[in-house]
Amino acid sequence: MPTLTLTALSGIPLVQAGDDLAALTLQAMQRHGLTLADQDVLVYASKVISKAEGRFVRLRDVQVSAAARAIAHSCEKDPRLVELILQESREVLRVRPGLIIVEHRQGFVCANAGIDHSNVADDDDMVLLLPADADASARSLQQRLRQLGGVDVAVVINDSHGRAWRLGTVGVAVGVAGLLPLADRRGQPDLFDRPLQVTMLGIADEIAAAASLIMGGAAESAPIVHARGVPYTSGDGHLSDLLRPRQLDMFR
Amino acid sequence: MPTLTLTALSGIPLVQAGDDLAALTLQAMQRHGLTLADQDVLVYASKVISKAEGRFVRLRDVQVSAAARAIAHSCEKDPRLVELILQESREVLRVRPGLIIVEHRQGFVCANAGIDHSNVADDDDMVLLLPADADASARSLQQRLRQLGGVDVAVVINDSHGRAWRLGTVGVAVGVAGLLPLADRRGQPDLFDRPLQVTMLGIADEIAAAASLIMGGAAESAPIVHARGVPYTSGDGHLSDLLRPRQLDMFR
Repeated sequence: MPTLTLTALSGIPLVQAGDDLAALTLQAMQRHGLTLADQDVLVYASKVISKAEGRFVRLRDVQVSAAARAIAHSCEKDPRLVELILQESREVLRVRPGLIIVEHRQGFVCANAGIDHSNVADDDDMVLLLPADADASARSLQQRLRQLGGVDVAVVINDSHGRAWRLGTVGVAVGVAGLLPLADRRGQPDLFDRPLQVTMLGIADEIAAAASLIMGGAAESAPIVHARGVPYTSGDGHLSDLLRPRQLDMFR
Repeated sequence: MPTLTLTALSGIPLVQAGDDLAALTLQAMQRHGLTLADQDVLVYASKVISKAEGRFVRLRDVQVSAAARAIAHSCEKDPRLVELILQESREVLRVRPGLIIVEHRQGFVCANAGIDHSNVADDDDMVLLLPADADASARSLQQRLRQLGGVDVAVVINDSHGRAWRLGTVGVAVGVAGLLPLADRRGQPDLFDRPLQVTMLGIADEIAAAASLIMGGAAESAPIVHARGVPYTSGDGHLSDLLRPRQLDMFR
């Protein structure tokens, strides 16, 4: 019976820069009566990684460029926030009131470069950037979990992204370690023993979405989710495996 | 401890036109030692709904229009299949070799109008269309499950869609019943008691993605998934709640 069980690790204290997230994970699992096992997956909200990595910026410290000022004017956003969005991005795709769609430095397309005020700090001047290199963050967490827990797990860092043609955000992977984020089923037999034609499954994104369901919604009260039963292939995967190459992009 | 448990209901026989999917679901759950409860969610692969509804078409019976012939030439697809894609669609967004991106009659953007050869029948001439009205299919399943099981559950019909900027397909909802597919958290307090600004969570799509992880991948060996612990709000939701209105579409 293929069963997938996801547990939101509630009761994690507010994370501070420098905290050992792997240790916090194992402590929380212990409180929940869970023991880490090979083939488990741990999903971390990008925000908790960013906090542990100290990716806070005070808006009053930001120097605003002319480019940021012009875009801020056209989308009615704080010019200092727009400056940070530009610094975090490779390309601006669309600008609308309150919204800047960019290709983030790490390659994915998202709104406002993933920079957010909510759940950041008890201070309206403080914002939080995404992890500087979420794949590297995932890899170091995976290694630390092996060191502390003695097992090989996969790590997915998720964030909530909008979609081009659908409303509502969904959890997607912004960093991965220890798994192949795409499951390539091309050539495998279908139910009638004919080879499948086009089937690459974005399983890291599906894991990210599943975890997002129980992270406590917008309040992110449970920023770490433990998953057992995910049918993934271990391996040295990277976020870039999930990103559509520009020459195949039909909608930029 | 918020826990989400998804069980792939394996051992479902190959579904035929006219089969009672609600009865098959309850029988499979019984074999898995599960009893249906209020607030459960059942996720059905669109293909199993289509089969039960007899949405098979023989390619040799298709009359090809001039428009379909022209598009088929430019994308190197079977003109009869292209004809069906056009009949199932409101608008063609992009045409590339092997690929036609359309707005489906039911409003979502997807590749090839969701028409597929794989897992359909032991006959290369047979293809399967999506359910004619997946919301209606979900609603009648939900009512039949209430009738047979005596409880109120939500139903999500999922399909695998590609994304504009990411590789790999993910499960998304193409029909819903019994739940609000968007969770609107605007105005709720964040961790620091400030109101959240932009937060509409596409939870029906996240449920669809989670279930997709254990449906047996491309072979769809387990086309029905039972989910318990999904934090959703019951209500009369519709797929259209998840579709971005055209005036807000920045990427068509």
